[in-house]
Amino acid sequence: MNRQIILAQRPIGAVDSTTTSLVTSPRPNCGPDQALIKVGMLSIDPTIRTWMNDAPGYLPPIGIGDVIRSSGAGVVVESNSSRYTPGDIVYGMTNWQEWVLADEQNRFTVLPSGMGLDLATVMNVLGVTGITAYFGLTDVGRFQEGDVVVVSGAAGATGSVVGQIAKARGAGRVVGIAGGPEKCAEVVEKYGFDECLDYREPHLARRLHEACPKGIDVYFDNVGGEILDAALSNIAMRGRIVMCGAISQYNTMQNAKGLVNTSMLIMRRARMEGFIVLDYASRFGEAQTELAQMVHAGSLVHSEHLVVGLEHAPDALNLLFSGGNHGKTLVVVDQEVQLG
Amino acid sequence: MNRQIILAQRPIGAVDSTTTSLVTSPRPNCGPDQALIKVGMLSIDPTIRTWMNDAPGYLPPIGIGDVIRSSGAGVVVESNSSRYTPGDIVYGMTNWQEWVLADEQNRFTVLPSGMGLDLATVMNVLGVTGITAYFGLTDVGRFQEGDVVVVSGAAGATGSVVGQIAKARGAGRVVGIAGGPEKCAEVVEKYGFDECLDYREPHLARRLHEACPKGIDVYFDNVGGEILDAALSNIAMRGRIVMCGAISQYNTMQNAKGLVNTSMLIMRRARMEGFIVLDYASRFGEAQTELAQMVHAGSLVHSEHLVVGLEHAPDALNLLFSGGNHGKTLVVVDQEVQLG
Repeated sequence: MNRQIILAQRPIGAVDSTTTSLVTSPRPNCGPDQALIKVGMLSIDPTIRTWMNDAPGYLPPIGIGDVIRSSGAGVVVESNSSRYTPGDIVYGMTNWQEWVLADEQNRFTVLPSGMGLDLATVMNVLGVTGITAYFGLTDVGRFQEGDVVVVSGAAGATGSVVGQIAKARGAGRVVGIAGGPEKCAEVVEKYGFDECLDYREPHLARRLHEACPKGIDVYFDNVGGEILDAALSNIAMRGRIVMCGAISQYNTMQNAKGLVNTSMLIMRRARMEGFIVLDYASRFGEAQTELAQMVHAGSLVHSEHLVVGLEHAPDALNLLFSGGNHGKTLVVVDQEVQLG
Repeated sequence: MNRQIILAQRPIGAVDSTTTSLVTSPRPNCGPDQALIKVGMLSIDPTIRTWMNDAPGYLPPIGIGDVIRSSGAGVVVESNSSRYTPGDIVYGMTNWQEWVLADEQNRFTVLPSGMGLDLATVMNVLGVTGITAYFGLTDVGRFQEGDVVVVSGAAGATGSVVGQIAKARGAGRVVGIAGGPEKCAEVVEKYGFDECLDYREPHLARRLHEACPKGIDVYFDNVGGEILDAALSNIAMRGRIVMCGAISQYNTMQNAKGLVNTSMLIMRRARMEGFIVLDYASRFGEAQTELAQMVHAGSLVHSEHLVVGLEHAPDALNLLFSGGNHGKTLVVVDQEVQLG
């Protein structure tokens, strides 16, 4: 059988017990040119919450009754496709379920073995999380040595990697923004940022000015909302704002407070640009090479927050919005699926 | 003597009779390396209003008691500088007064004579107004043939030129946004846009969707605020938003309604970028060559709204915000100053 989590109704605000249902379907059959994959681990990303809304997005909304869309990793159990060999550990759109078919419409990437890295690390740093950090900073943000970089969601999976890449590449200063003293301490002590500001304290814009008196060259935005506005008011001449996510807005799309400081883009000839990491699919290897080198050299500190059990995936998603996670949130569906 | 208009106190909202004072000072003396210029015409631009605020900008605020900062044109009457010859018609920062000194700190451009164009046309199309339209569309907006272009403030001096350059360069569709049926008719009939939407009517976002069902490739924003938000919600994949001005916000900086649709920049991998035309000073000739060719070929329709008398400059500035002007607003200080 195949346990699956489906969208029961569209959430308003946070996901709760009425949003999803755990159902059981027959295990799918492996047809021609298909491979049957046993899911081992799910990647829990904020974007999943946006797919639950009936709103235009970069992918269509998840349909009511459909399995929740998600990336993840698994092991090939059976294959009628030349792309996959039984035993391969593969990464792709597994969705929230125990079994999934790979085919021409839903292709998976075979993960290399023998890297000496465990699956959780690979799904974090070498998966979309790390790759998002890499291309957001270097390509969208046009990072240059000496730049003053500010990162929101700095204790999070993406933000913590952004700051470390910036430091490794010679940033002038790397300042994080995170929620609460514990996370701020983690950002500085564990991830090596120069400073971290607590957005729960008042006067963030003023404190950003004190932390970056010459302005922010690259602001990597993981949250949107008032924090983005505070960064806008401190953007440097020709600064770049990388819009990676607007997590503070995802649960409250309809009543989002607007940005009031966008005219700073004119004053400072600055740019605000959004991106979706999937657009860089053809260049993933470039990012993975540098990130793997950093991991092996011990210069990339990373954390994974493992939640065990498919049935806890909705709670794991909520952790991203409550700030209850530390590092990359992953759901373990089958702990026997591991990289060799 | 030198009649001057000075900033008496900072306006809240529109400029009124308490904002400026008309004063009389001695005519300045032409010192070493200086030239004395008799001012003929002032360029009335929305940005002047922003300089009246005590707020960070791309230039410092105008000080209380200082002459209002403004570009303009005049004739060289006396010169101790090798840059200028008496009789030259020059363009630069004249400010709101009858006489000004050119020196190393305040340089003027000598306008070429014999172009067969009158001074008002040159100050409009070949001045910062036309040049703003040119670089905003082509450089910041990365206009490409076939693009769907939307321009707000389409009946205005800059907007009307943006649409005509886009048409001349093979835009797929050029849609204007303007206030009221009269201006909308002018945008289509006089300036040759394909369509013009009246922002005073409801449901602008929906009407933009109907006018541009495949989305907006380049949105040239002259106004900011809710119109910018409506354009954001219709931006095409990899669309570019050119932030030229935020005229709807200039009088109400403190209470500006925020933008709520900026997450569309992520969904559509779009970019929003501000610019100041002065940054392109070294490339002005490139724009002026193409614009002059269009004027001579009769393919660039332009209008100038002349207000006669230095003392009416504050009223002329208010026209920009009330929408009472048609085309480029210029104040005639001395109508005898003309191009040969």
